[in-house]
Amino acid sequence: MPNPKRPHVVIIGAGFGGLAAAKGLERADVDITVIDKRNHHLFQPLLYQVATAGLSPADIASPIRHILRKQANISVLLDRVYGIDREKKYVILGEHDPLAYDWLIIATGARHSYFGNDAWEPFARGIKTIEDATQVRRNILMALERAETEPDPERRAALLTFVIIGGGPTGVEMAGAIAELARKSVSSDFRNIGAHSSRIILLQRGDRLLPSFPEKLSAKTLTAIQKLGAEVQLKANVTDIDADGVTANNVKIPSKTVIWAAGVTASRASEWLDCGRDTAGRVQVSTRLHPMNDPAIFVIGDTAACTDGNGLMLPGVAPVAKQQGEYAAKAIMAHLRGREAEPFCYKNYGNLATIGRSQAVADFGRFQLSGFAGWVLWCTAHIWFLSGFRNRIGVGITWLWSYITFERNARLITGDFAPDLPATRELAAHLKQRPTVEA
Amino acid sequence: MPNPKRPHVVIIGAGFGGLAAAKGLERADVDITVIDKRNHHLFQPLLYQVATAGLSPADIASPIRHILRKQANISVLLDRVYGIDREKKYVILGEHDPLAYDWLIIATGARHSYFGNDAWEPFARGIKTIEDATQVRRNILMALERAETEPDPERRAALLTFVIIGGGPTGVEMAGAIAELARKSVSSDFRNIGAHSSRIILLQRGDRLLPSFPEKLSAKTLTAIQKLGAEVQLKANVTDIDADGVTANNVKIPSKTVIWAAGVTASRASEWLDCGRDTAGRVQVSTRLHPMNDPAIFVIGDTAACTDGNGLMLPGVAPVAKQQGEYAAKAIMAHLRGREAEPFCYKNYGNLATIGRSQAVADFGRFQLSGFAGWVLWCTAHIWFLSGFRNRIGVGITWLWSYITFERNARLITGDFAPDLPATRELAAHLKQRPTVEA
Repeated sequence: MPNPKRPHVVIIGAGFGGLAAAKGLERADVDITVIDKRNHHLFQPLLYQVATAGLSPADIASPIRHILRKQANISVLLDRVYGIDREKKYVILGEHDPLAYDWLIIATGARHSYFGNDAWEPFARGIKTIEDATQVRRNILMALERAETEPDPERRAALLTFVIIGGGPTGVEMAGAIAELARKSVSSDFRNIGAHSSRIILLQRGDRLLPSFPEKLSAKTLTAIQKLGAEVQLKANVTDIDADGVTANNVKIPSKTVIWAAGVTASRASEWLDCGRDTAGRVQVSTRLHPMNDPAIFVIGDTAACTDGNGLMLPGVAPVAKQQGEYAAKAIMAHLRGREAEPFCYKNYGNLATIGRSQAVADFGRFQLSGFAGWVLWCTAHIWFLSGFRNRIGVGITWLWSYITFERNARLITGDFAPDLPATRELAAHLKQRPTVEA
Repeated sequence: MPNPKRPHVVIIGAGFGGLAAAKGLERADVDITVIDKRNHHLFQPLLYQVATAGLSPADIASPIRHILRKQANISVLLDRVYGIDREKKYVILGEHDPLAYDWLIIATGARHSYFGNDAWEPFARGIKTIEDATQVRRNILMALERAETEPDPERRAALLTFVIIGGGPTGVEMAGAIAELARKSVSSDFRNIGAHSSRIILLQRGDRLLPSFPEKLSAKTLTAIQKLGAEVQLKANVTDIDADGVTANNVKIPSKTVIWAAGVTASRASEWLDCGRDTAGRVQVSTRLHPMNDPAIFVIGDTAACTDGNGLMLPGVAPVAKQQGEYAAKAIMAHLRGREAEPFCYKNYGNLATIGRSQAVADFGRFQLSGFAGWVLWCTAHIWFLSGFRNRIGVGITWLWSYITFERNARLITGDFAPDLPATRELAAHLKQRPTVEA
């Protein structure tokens, strides 16, 4: 329980931003409560690997308590936030009593957005949580299983067509990984699915892939992803998604597996704060990351609409969230010493995106890397930033093994199995429905 | 598709028995179809490690297709069996047309049985599938999370009491692993749960643990498990299980986490075959493993009621299933050469059970091992028998790491999260329900 004499910092969300804020307050004379609705921190940049059966969920997720266990001034609370009372300064929770704060750091991230077309969600799952990723994995693997025994050529083609919507880093990574899975990893396991049976189609609304990268790297990415066997459609305007496929530029693409990587919307923080939001649902913050100039609250990461020195909106990526978390911690410590922090200033150390086996692009402003050198850098950086030492080793070994053998070992179809039915009753029903075979 | 000229062997179930039969027919001039309702073979002896967050599901499961990919005479079918027509010799499936067979090998295993008390199931989950194991993992981890912030001492004690019902190998393994998890691995992560806050209670109906082992090893197991901090109640007669705990010998043990390891019942094969079954649901087979003396059908593994030379019932363990699978394959090959196979004879190479960190017992008839030597043997044997080379390395490293650090890294609470609710409406409701705090 927090000591009533020490200031209480409440952090909502243990993503990159929330964890950075918590760690930044390690030496501060405050009590910290970290609230998250899940028990684990998730290394989202590698979630697409779980969705494509390359890694296991536990490889990229660690219990929040475990990550923060050595920091004595922190309590971790598994709960869901329902609201914030700015006047009385407390957070309203689902299972626990309201929690009073002196400072509040909101770092609740984003979830996928269908731009008003929520009816598309059941047919085009996005990848934000472990459950999303294992569901997408299930969809991909089930489509392959069904295609193996589907006699109808049209239905078979739809089962073997994988459409990824969105040509940003997540979409490019998913397209590359699915191409590797469907064309290399599994072809020896199936009898009727060969290396060239599957189509992987990446739909991008804009006129190039990875629009946040320099044009040169976009062009290289396009070549690389086509070489992996994925088809890319630029200027693709998606107008409908249903159980049978995607309509883009008035052409229907029959597909049983559609993956959404096109857009996100911020968490509900703007509702909790009862303040305005931009079109992506983000809360407008001051240069010191305060919403509505409330000095007791910081909004950071994907939930904050924050501009850099040139008035450009900062992107929803891990480095921004981390630096903002560190900034919030420093600002609180400055205040405790009676000073005021300088405005937040984002330092861009570079952007990375991987395309697939041995291919990645890296943008460091002055210079760029691509191909194998980019991929080595990408692997190194991602293993380095993974929380928890055991996971780093585990992921490193898994990748090295996959690289040598082309195997993807986490190919499990789990969940949603119907319970066993009594055979006798079902048998009778089946015998009526099914043509009998001549023995 | 099977070649109509070659004999067709259908194997239902890709557990230890089904896989052994499939591999045993590698050089036979037959077409083989392996049917399973799941896409993966599961190494069930290590499932308790998934339930206690030591291993990830993918560490102990491999796609069946992948295990059998190099055997050209095999097709793998993901489907559910609804019945068998013995007269016309075909298998009735859920999603595919009926499948004709020349030989049929039924290796569909067992599931847990509550001895007629099916109402206990929601409160005392057994561990037979990956979904079972991740659900038990979730229950254990959620109980710890809730205990961390529970102010009421009685409710807190119930949250920190873990009851395991059944003192066979699975129950002993679970009790040891939960003791390690709740007392060692997580105590540094929580602020209000110490190494001695949790109670682990193992209830055994009989008068000793591991009744299938020699008495000397039962006694050693009892001492070892008590040393790990688990309480053992022998001659415990469980008469009720509900949401609040277990009643044994007319005493109620308040507990929010009860795990069932007390009994299994065979799969529905006896219903498919429309034949009798014993009290454990098993199909009586001849010395050549045929039910009802039907020479076209073999029933093997946990589904078969089969006695050894001395008239003793063979136990439901992996080595029996494997040897019976190999036998069925040999019997079919003998028949193809116009001969008849000798009756099945089980060779008992020994029994192993682990108790926890550095403790296991091994029974080889003439001599026994226990303590650290038994544990090293247990680890070596289990890593060796794990299907798939990558998994062997992965599990080996994970175990070594856990042994050195006491960490259990797969501590993820997944599934069943309520969707985000609109804050505004909920906020109003909450403000009414909750006492407001004074800021």
